[in-house]
Amino acid sequence: MTIRIRREDIEGQVRRVLAARRVGGEQAAICARIIAENSLDGVTSHGVTRFPHFVGTIDQGLIVPNVEPEQVAAFGAIERWDGKRGLGPVMATRFMARAMELAAENGIGCVAARNTTHWLRGGTYGLQAARSGFAAICWTNARPGMPAWGGTKPRLGNNPIVFALPGEPPILVDMALSQFSYGKIQEAALAGRQLPVPGAIGFDGKPTSDAKEIIETLKAGAYRLLPTGYWKGSALAFVLDAMAAVLSDGLASREVETETTADVGISQVFIAIDVARMLPPRELQDRLDELAAHLKQGHAGDAEDVRFPGEGAERQRRYNLEHGVPVDETVWQAVQAL
Amino acid sequence: MTIRIRREDIEGQVRRVLAARRVGGEQAAICARIIAENSLDGVTSHGVTRFPHFVGTIDQGLIVPNVEPEQVAAFGAIERWDGKRGLGPVMATRFMARAMELAAENGIGCVAARNTTHWLRGGTYGLQAARSGFAAICWTNARPGMPAWGGTKPRLGNNPIVFALPGEPPILVDMALSQFSYGKIQEAALAGRQLPVPGAIGFDGKPTSDAKEIIETLKAGAYRLLPTGYWKGSALAFVLDAMAAVLSDGLASREVETETTADVGISQVFIAIDVARMLPPRELQDRLDELAAHLKQGHAGDAEDVRFPGEGAERQRRYNLEHGVPVDETVWQAVQAL
Repeated sequence: MTIRIRREDIEGQVRRVLAARRVGGEQAAICARIIAENSLDGVTSHGVTRFPHFVGTIDQGLIVPNVEPEQVAAFGAIERWDGKRGLGPVMATRFMARAMELAAENGIGCVAARNTTHWLRGGTYGLQAARSGFAAICWTNARPGMPAWGGTKPRLGNNPIVFALPGEPPILVDMALSQFSYGKIQEAALAGRQLPVPGAIGFDGKPTSDAKEIIETLKAGAYRLLPTGYWKGSALAFVLDAMAAVLSDGLASREVETETTADVGISQVFIAIDVARMLPPRELQDRLDELAAHLKQGHAGDAEDVRFPGEGAERQRRYNLEHGVPVDETVWQAVQAL
Repeated sequence: MTIRIRREDIEGQVRRVLAARRVGGEQAAICARIIAENSLDGVTSHGVTRFPHFVGTIDQGLIVPNVEPEQVAAFGAIERWDGKRGLGPVMATRFMARAMELAAENGIGCVAARNTTHWLRGGTYGLQAARSGFAAICWTNARPGMPAWGGTKPRLGNNPIVFALPGEPPILVDMALSQFSYGKIQEAALAGRQLPVPGAIGFDGKPTSDAKEIIETLKAGAYRLLPTGYWKGSALAFVLDAMAAVLSDGLASREVETETTADVGISQVFIAIDVARMLPPRELQDRLDELAAHLKQGHAGDAEDVRFPGEGAERQRRYNLEHGVPVDETVWQAVQAL
């Protein structure tokens, strides 16, 4: 059952649990804010729901709290940093902040980070940039969870990529490169629903939308999650992994898999562009408003059915700010017991 | 019927036809090389097959030959340029070259270009960067040809995006944001084949793989091409359009549509990263070889079924260099008659 929790109470619980692990100060504050905000924006899977797992990776020693990232090399407006396997959301926040500093100096800036850990929700860092007037492109690699197009064994991470533009609300695309997460498929299977579009390769070797069959393929060891856009997402996941590994001189997906059982030691890229310097914010807002309106008028009937990227999260944020952040009751009990 | 033409003969024809339109020198040489190379790489739709249409847009005065691009504004490592509605492939070549110069100075460089025209094949500019040791991300907007997810009227361009990394062969992802081009759907309909995955919304309002039905929806005015990855490609097409328009201070897809009947006046973004400075080329090659081998070993049976991005084009290039560039006989007659 979903209950409604005040944002401050979520942040308080996160800080309490982290303090017991000797994480305090700014690092704890960043984690608390990000976990609460992800749930606030309706991305519960990467908010409170994820927190017990996040704490587990600290307790297992996979993630190292209280370290700060280190600059490894600088090439002008692009720098290479080491995340020291520190707290993923803290490191990613630092990296995007540094990319923004470089962009403020050079118009465009980039941080390629190695040896970092799961950043929770990629959109967090797109919003971080957008809310300060920067456009952003960032992505991460991840342990392999899906085969390449035409393949059968997991070779590609779902390597989420984020695009953001400043605005009210910010324009935000945050897309993993598997068409569906495991969670969404399981949800549909439990509800007896078909997926709206194919989500994995079925037993007959063809794309299927049958969520129950997909869960059966997992049990039978024949689980083949489909990339976003099939061959296109497959190619994109490969090149994003290669770019992240090469630019950061860090681990590629396949090496992460060999080394650990979690998304630890992964590679990330953060690009920021000082768009506020390139177009007056008022003009930028007008242009984005026009584009959003035009998109929404692209529906024959109820225009509410077409949303511009970032609109859904904004809507959830407003609703949840008023009514409380939605948290699964069992999850909340687990958090309180941590 | 497909015939085989020597690359030099294609370049010669392109130069002859352009010379008759008073386009010579470097501009003609760039067009000739790009058109021949696109067909050489097996991307015939954006090579020789496209040339008669390309010449048509010059003859109609939509594209202005012999102009050179102009720098409009500079913000450090990112610059805004005006393409003056010149020859798309020439302008895009100049823009990527400038992004590479900026990257050579600053580690990363970006050109945002407005008022430019159809660049033919996006992969051309990814390869241009990769072959000189730069990683690249570039994209273009285009006239709206597909509805947003949930919409019914065309609102989004297929806004191709390119990712490239230097290597032998270069890693190259060149993806339009419609899952299929109109040409591919028509090809399947004519051959009586189903598409391998859904390509458009069918008459019942759901995604369909029935190529014939999709062509029927076009005739009935209910044509709804599906974005790559459904809602994901829809969001991505929107943000790429917005970013290109905002960074270049140029036209967004919807404004291009209002102004002209072709992809003229469009906006493009070119990002280059001096990766050769960040990792020794030998080390880069080793890493990419490992990644490609790992990907290919992801198939239970014949590993040839899994290709890394860029491998297909490389294979076609080698074959066609030996056997001649494949050109449709009717197209070749049309080119000779221009």
